[in-house]
Parts: sequence; structure tokens; C-alpha cells
Amino acid sequence: MARKLILDVDTGIDDALAIAYALASPELELIGVTCTYGNVEVSQAVRNSLAILELFGRTDVPVYAGPQRDGFEVMEISQFIHGMNGIGEAELYDAARAVEPLSAVDFLVQSVHRYGDDLVIVPVGPLTTVAEAVSTDDHFATRAHIVCMGGALTVPGNVSPFAEANINQDPEGADLVFRQCVDITMIGLDVTLQTLLTTVETKRWKDLETAGGDFLAEATNYYIKAYETTAPHLGGCGLHDPLAVAVAADPSLVETLAINLKVDTEGPSRGRTIADETCLNDPVKSARVAVGVDAERFLEEFMSRLTGLARETPVV
Amino acid sequence: MARKLILDVDTGIDDALAIAYALASPELELIGVTCTYGNVEVSQAVRNSLAILELFGRTDVPVYAGPQRDGFEVMEISQFIHGMNGIGEAELYDAARAVEPLSAVDFLVQSVHRYGDDLVIVPVGPLTTVAEAVSTDDHFATRAHIVCMGGALTVPGNVSPFAEANINQDPEGADLVFRQCVDITMIGLDVTLQTLLTTVETKRWKDLETAGGDFLAEATNYYIKAYETTAPHLGGCGLHDPLAVAVAADPSLVETLAINLKVDTEGPSRGRTIADETCLNDPVKSARVAVGVDAERFLEEFMSRLTGLARETPVV
Repeated sequence: MARKLILDVDTGIDDALAIAYALASPELELIGVTCTYGNVEVSQAVRNSLAILELFGRTDVPVYAGPQRDGFEVMEISQFIHGMNGIGEAELYDAARAVEPLSAVDFLVQSVHRYGDDLVIVPVGPLTTVAEAVSTDDHFATRAHIVCMGGALTVPGNVSPFAEANINQDPEGADLVFRQCVDITMIGLDVTLQTLLTTVETKRWKDLETAGGDFLAEATNYYIKAYETTAPHLGGCGLHDPLAVAVAADPSLVETLAINLKVDTEGPSRGRTIADETCLNDPVKSARVAVGVDAERFLEEFMSRLTGLARETPVV
Repeated sequence: MARKLILDVDTGIDDALAIAYALASPELELIGVTCTYGNVEVSQAVRNSLAILELFGRTDVPVYAGPQRDGFEVMEISQFIHGMNGIGEAELYDAARAVEPLSAVDFLVQSVHRYGDDLVIVPVGPLTTVAEAVSTDDHFATRAHIVCMGGALTVPGNVSPFAEANINQDPEGADLVFRQCVDITMIGLDVTLQTLLTTVETKRWKDLETAGGDFLAEATNYYIKAYETTAPHLGGCGLHDPLAVAVAADPSLVETLAINLKVDTEGPSRGRTIADETCLNDPVKSARVAVGVDAERFLEEFMSRLTGLARETPVV
């Protein structure tokens, strides 16, 4: 039986790829998409997520809006990487379906209580919504199973030498989540910068001559182009968010290190994910940090799943 | 056949324990001790090392002096942890044997050429002497096999939130060594803070009623007492330097992560050991960073070896 999945996104190009990966994964049943801020504002993340679900024929999946941090503004670097509309200036029609009236926080809490161990939550943006679920409900932290994209343990950050972009948006929220939640797998830059896509792959989508293939190719090419400026040494774009979904579907894709994590909230290293030295020798570890990835196998799954999904969309 | 070992120390209480571990390890043949600065000045490290070798009846092992960084002064925290004389104010007679006229750098270079793959170098202080060997000899970096104590990859540092004490003394030297040397195992705070000793164990040495047992107990109790102030959450003292020797004798004591390392040399994180993001996807990795340790097995080996060694010294 497929494991139920809630994907928490700030859609974003790689968030779009993560949604597609979730829809294309037989191991997962996407029961809802919750939207947060980060690459874009919450309202734009909602709009993009609904439109992408409709593009791939999955208007049955509900979308929920989460809280936006006070005073949030999209960073210039986010706009450069994801475009003003978050999806690389690709044009998608607004979906017919509307956002749900239930809040993302309430949906997370209710789902954890309803589905228990049959549910995995995959946040691929700032951890604000998840942190609010932890604060709202006494049982959430001990019952939720989380695979998040964010952080950098063994490698430098990408918005500072210390901080990865998702954690950087809300270090306090992330610190709460890492300290309280008992089952959290961190898919950070340690591994996502090893899973790279190039225009060789996106051409396969373009060649499908379908609406889905066109969208995936156009958005991802924008993302690849941005990476050529921001991280030319990589030779491709990092598949951050889809890797987290892939690990939720198949944990054997990564090697992990068991560790009790904290997030620095002050000083120059604000946003750094690092071991909490005060519980270094606790026998129980709450987090598993991915430190190795079978990049080749992941890329094969990624291309085969997304190409299969895009092939089923209308011919252009 | 035992593997030849050169131990590079800034003796230091845990350096003293590392020398003892080396002498007590049948897998290793200690062919020389090279002395650097850090916990103490080079001259004091030489004095302590010679005295410890004599205490354990190993006046056959030569001791070499390395370079001291210009303007070096022992840090207050080092004096607090290791005592003014470096060995917890334990009193040892000056050894009859004198320091060798050959420099530590030349001894390292000559030994690498002479013994090749049969030699392992274990630096447990700042990497200044090793860095000078790298700079002096074109073949050193590609031929030397190194297991060093230093650094902190997944945990905060101990002299700053970023830097471990050994790396902190000479970040440029450490950066050169990590970037140039092709076979280096890093035994950092990630694992050494998981290998703890308490007064329960040192009492076993005291109870031997031998000169060696008295010295080990007295010096280590000083170290444990300092840790009660500097890191009370640990509940013991970290066996930093001996763990590096133990891994040189038996690599299966640790789990390692293959990685290309760099050392931050500027800004607030000066002295931080972290992956070099520009060669994250190089198939060849120069370093193996210990991220897990079989602490129980190491502690058993540590106690059995050091107690056995101390038992053979004269009765007091």
C-alpha cells in the first residue's frame, strides 16, 4: 500500500519537480499539498501548486495555505533562481480548483492524528508551518514522520557560508522542529548538490511535445541557467526538493548519519544546522542526516518518473 | 608485521595518553615522536615526550623538534586543561636522552621516502610540521598516510563555535594539508567527544601502585577535573589524541565519510573544517572523516592497553 504523503512547498522550480515526482511515485499517495513562503510568497506558491496539479491531471489533490512570516519579502537571489513567478517565467493557466479553507497547520495536525505511521510529511521550504504544528499540538512532534529538504551539515550553506536557504528563512522554527520532532530525516545540501540535472535531460522532456514536457523543460532550463551563474562549478542544477520526495518513497537512496541536531539562531552562523553538543552522547537520536546519495539511481528514477508523467499530458 | 608510526604531539595530557597507547599497541611500531606547539611550547612538548618515553622504558624511541609558529603563546584555556607543564602538574624527571639534531620536518620527509606505505603519521596537534613537510617535499603529500586528530565536521568547535583547537592554531597549515594530501583520516570532535574517561577508570591505574600508573592517574585526573568546568555536560574527559592512534592501529573502530575537505581561513569561522564545495562531486576524495565510533570497544582497548603498559613500570 502506498504511504500517504503531504508535501509542504514554496513552489519554486524544484518544488514543481518535487510535486511531479510525488505524483509519479507509486510508493506514495499525495493526500495534500501545503504551501509556505520562501522562493515565492504563500499566495504564489498556492497558485503555482494548484496549476501544476491541474497540468498533470490531478485536480483531486487539495492545496492548503500556511502562515507567512511577518515582513517576508522574496529575496533577490530567489527571484533570480526561480523567476518572478517562481516557475522560471513559464506560463501556466490558473487552476479551476481553489485553495482549501482549512489551514495548512490544521491539515498537518489532523492528518498526523488520522494516519499516524502511514503518513510522511515532506517539507521542502522553510519549516514555519511544521513548527506551528509542533507548537499547536502536543502530540505532533512525537507522531509525525518527516523527511525535509533543508540544511547543510558537512558542506557550506548556499545563502551564507553557514546557512541553507530554507533553514535561513526561519532558523527558530527549524530549531524547534529539530529539537522536538523524534523522526526527521534531513536531506540537505550535503546530498542535493550531488544530484544534478543538465539540459541534456530537459531536452528529453521538450521532445515529448506535451504540455507537461514543455513546462518541465522550460522551468528547469531557467533554473539550470541560474545555476550557471550562481554555482558554475557544479555543471548543472541541484535537484533539492525532488530528492526529499524520492527518499520518502525509497529511503535506500541515501546513507544517513544519526544525530541530534540544533540550528544556530544567533551570530554570523544564524541558520547553520549542526549537532547539539549537549546531547552528543544520548543513545537516542532524533534526526538522520543524509550524507551520501546514490545519485545515479536517483537520476534514473527522476527522469523515468517525470518523463512518464509528462508523456500523459495533452499534446501541444 | 607492525606498521611503523610517527606520532606528532604537543604533549599535553591526552598526547601523553596517545604516546602510551602507541607504545602498548602491537599493531604499531613507534619509530619516532615529533613535537609541535599547542597545548605547550615545542620545548616543553619535547621535554614531556622524552620523559614519558623514559617512564615507560622506551628510551630507544627518538624525539624530534618541529617548528613553532612565530609569536605563539600557550592559550589560557590550554593551561587550564593541561596545566602549566602540560601534564597536569604531574612531576616527571627529565629524561637522560636528548632531542635529535634532525628536524621533525626532515624526519617526516625522510621516513615517508624510506618506508612508503608501511608508515602512518599521526599528528595530534596543529598541522604546522606536516604542512611544512608538504611544502618542503614534492612527493610528501601523495605518499604520506595520515591519521590526524583535529577538526569538527558535524559538531561545533571547542575554541569557537566553528574551530577545534588543533586546527585553530594553524588554519592555513591545516588547509594546505587537507587540500594536498591524498590519504588523510580526520579524527575530530565528531567522535572524540564520544570517547570519555572518568575517575572510575583512572582509579584502576592508581591502584597499580606503579610509577606509570601514578603518572597516568594523576595527569588524567587533572584533565577530567578541567572538563568538569569546561564541558560538564559530557561527564568525563575526551580521549582525543589516543583515539587517533587507536584508529591508526585499527581503522575498524570508526565509521568514516569520504569527503574533500578545506579549512576556513578567514572571517568568524576561521579554523572550521568543512567540505570544499567546489569539488563536491569529484569521484576521488582525499579525506575520510570519522563520524561514528565504537566507543565501548575503544575504551576497553584503551584501558586494557594502558593498564598493561603501566603495570610493567617500577613499583612505587
